[in-house]
Amino acid sequence: MNIYDVSEKAGVSIATVSRVLNGNPNVSDRTRSRVLKVMDELGYTPNVFARGLGLGTIQTVGIMCSDSSDPYLAHAIYYLERGLKDYGYDSILCCTGSLLDNKRQYFDLLRSKKVDAIILAGSKFIEPRVRDNGYILEAAREIPIMLVNGFLEGENIYSTLCDDRMATYKATRELLQSGCRQILYLFTSFSYSGTCKLKGYRDALTGQGLSVREDYIHHCPKDILAARELLLSLHESGLHFDAVLTSDDTLAVGAVKYAHAAGRRIPDDLSIVGYNNSSYAVCTDPELTSIDSKVEALCTTTINTLMGVFNGGNVPVRTTIAADLIKRATTRF
Amino acid sequence: MNIYDVSEKAGVSIATVSRVLNGNPNVSDRTRSRVLKVMDELGYTPNVFARGLGLGTIQTVGIMCSDSSDPYLAHAIYYLERGLKDYGYDSILCCTGSLLDNKRQYFDLLRSKKVDAIILAGSKFIEPRVRDNGYILEAAREIPIMLVNGFLEGENIYSTLCDDRMATYKATRELLQSGCRQILYLFTSFSYSGTCKLKGYRDALTGQGLSVREDYIHHCPKDILAARELLLSLHESGLHFDAVLTSDDTLAVGAVKYAHAAGRRIPDDLSIVGYNNSSYAVCTDPELTSIDSKVEALCTTTINTLMGVFNGGNVPVRTTIAADLIKRATTRF
Repeated sequence: MNIYDVSEKAGVSIATVSRVLNGNPNVSDRTRSRVLKVMDELGYTPNVFARGLGLGTIQTVGIMCSDSSDPYLAHAIYYLERGLKDYGYDSILCCTGSLLDNKRQYFDLLRSKKVDAIILAGSKFIEPRVRDNGYILEAAREIPIMLVNGFLEGENIYSTLCDDRMATYKATRELLQSGCRQILYLFTSFSYSGTCKLKGYRDALTGQGLSVREDYIHHCPKDILAARELLLSLHESGLHFDAVLTSDDTLAVGAVKYAHAAGRRIPDDLSIVGYNNSSYAVCTDPELTSIDSKVEALCTTTINTLMGVFNGGNVPVRTTIAADLIKRATTRF
Repeated sequence: MNIYDVSEKAGVSIATVSRVLNGNPNVSDRTRSRVLKVMDELGYTPNVFARGLGLGTIQTVGIMCSDSSDPYLAHAIYYLERGLKDYGYDSILCCTGSLLDNKRQYFDLLRSKKVDAIILAGSKFIEPRVRDNGYILEAAREIPIMLVNGFLEGENIYSTLCDDRMATYKATRELLQSGCRQILYLFTSFSYSGTCKLKGYRDALTGQGLSVREDYIHHCPKDILAARELLLSLHESGLHFDAVLTSDDTLAVGAVKYAHAAGRRIPDDLSIVGYNNSSYAVCTDPELTSIDSKVEALCTTTINTLMGVFNGGNVPVRTTIAADLIKRATTRF
C-alpha cells in the first residue's frame, strides 16, 4: 500500500496526493476530500515523516550552509528555497560558518524548532573525521537529512551528488589529448567533493600510464589573488606547467591573471579549466572553459527526493548527476 | 519610561535588557528576574512589537529578496541571517523573483506564519508605482518592515540606505578631475537606488556647468556579455566616450571586456568605474575601481534598528550610510 495506489484509485496524479499529504493549499476541497477518502478506504498511512495534513508539522525545512554568500551555495539556496516553496514548504536559512562547534549548535537549534527536515548544502558541511558527524546521524533518527553534494553514510540520510570524479577525469583526459603534459592541479578543500575531484585527476593520469607528481598538486584558499600569487611563486621556483586544472572557478580566474602577469599566452602556452561554470567564467579574457556541476539539477533532485521521503515512497539514498564540460577559450579543445 | 531607564535601574546593559525582552537564553536566571522586577516596578511595557518573554512570538524574521543568488543580495542575506541569529532570531528566507504578483503572494504567506518582522532586501523589492506597494504599507500596521537599501514612506517602515547619489556624484567628479570629458553611464534598474545613482551622475555634470547628454545614459541588463555588446554597438555607432560609470560591477566587467575587444587601453584611453566592490572587481585585468556600497554595515544597522523597534526605543526611520570609492587600476585617479 503506497502513494501510487492512492493516486490510481483516486484518479489523481501522485503530485496531487503529495500536495494533499503536505497540506498544500493548491488543491481543491473536492479533490482533497476524494484523496483523503481513498486513503481511508485503502488504510493508507503515510510514513512517519509525512506529517502533513496539518497535524504536527510546521511545513518548514531548515537549510544549512557554511556561507550563503559563496556563489555556488548562493545558487543552491536559491534553487532549494524555490523548490520547497513549490511544495508549500518554508525555508529557515542557517549560515553556520566553518567551525564544527557552531555547526553543531545551530543544527541543534534548528532541530528544536521541529523543522520537518534539514538540508545540508555543500560538501564542506560534512567533517572529514567520521566521529565529528555523529550529531547528524543522531538527528537523522528523527527527521530526514538531505545532503546537496555531500556524502555521509547513515539511515534516513539522502545524498544528491555531482559526479565530480568523472568530471575532473574527463577534463584531464581532454587536456592530455590536446597536448598538455604538465598539468597542475589546484584545489580549495579536502571535503568529500574535493577528494573526488582530486581522484579524477589522478586516475586520468595513471590511466594513461603517466605518473602523478605530488609537486603538481597544490591546496589554495578560495581567493582569486591567492591563486594568482601561488602560481607566480611556483613559476618563479622553476616549475614547468602547461595547464592548470582547478576545483573552483575562483582559482581559474587567478590562473588567468597569473598568465597575464607572467606574459604567458592562453591557451597556446597555458590551458586553464575552471569548476562550477559560475559567472566568473565569463569575467575573464579569454573566457574560462569550466565544468558545469549542475547545481540546479542537484537542488531539484534533492527536493524531489525529500518529497518522496515525506510521502513514504521508496527513494534512492544516493543520486549522482553527471557534470558537463563547457568549452570556452582557455583550452585548445 | 523606556528601555534605558530599565537598564539603568537594573544595573545591566541595554543589550541585556534586550536579551530578556527577546527571550534570549544567554541571560542568567538571576539577571532575568532582576530585569523583570525593575520593569514591573517602573511600569515599563515593551512596545507592541517587543513580543518577547516567550509570549506570542516565534522569534523568527522573514527575509525577502527577488533573487538570493545575486552576489549583492547573497551577501546581504548572509549578514542579515548572522545578525538575527546573534539576537536569537531565526530567518525564514523567501526568494520572490521580480513579478509583483509573486512578491505579494509570498509576502502574505510570510505574514500568515506570524513572523515578528519582515526584511525586504534590495532596492528592487519596492515597485516604482506607489500604489503597487500598498500591501507592504498594510502589513506594516501589524509588524515592522525593514528595508535594506530600499525606500518606502510609511509608518512602521524603516530604511537603511547607502548614499548612492553621493557615491556616483563623487565618482563622476573624480572622473572629470582626472580629465575624462565624455562619461557614459550604464545602469541596470529604475529602482529607488538606481534613481539615486543616476541623479548623482547628472548632478555632478551640471554642478560643473556641463550638459547631460541623454545619449550617454543607457539601460543594460545585469549581464557581463550584454554590457560588452552594448558598448561595442555604441562604439560602432560612432559615439565617442572616454569613461564608463556603471551601477553594478557586472556592467563594469563587461566594459573591460569591451575595451579588450575594441583595442582600447585602460585607463589611458578609457576609464571604468564599477559599483558594489564585489569579487568581480578583482576578476579583470586591470582590476576595477569600484564603489563600495557597504552591504555589511547596511545589514548590521538594519538588525540593530529592528532590535530597537522590538524594544520600543526611539529608532530612526531612515539611516543613510556613506559609500567608499575603492581605487584600483581602471581609472587614472
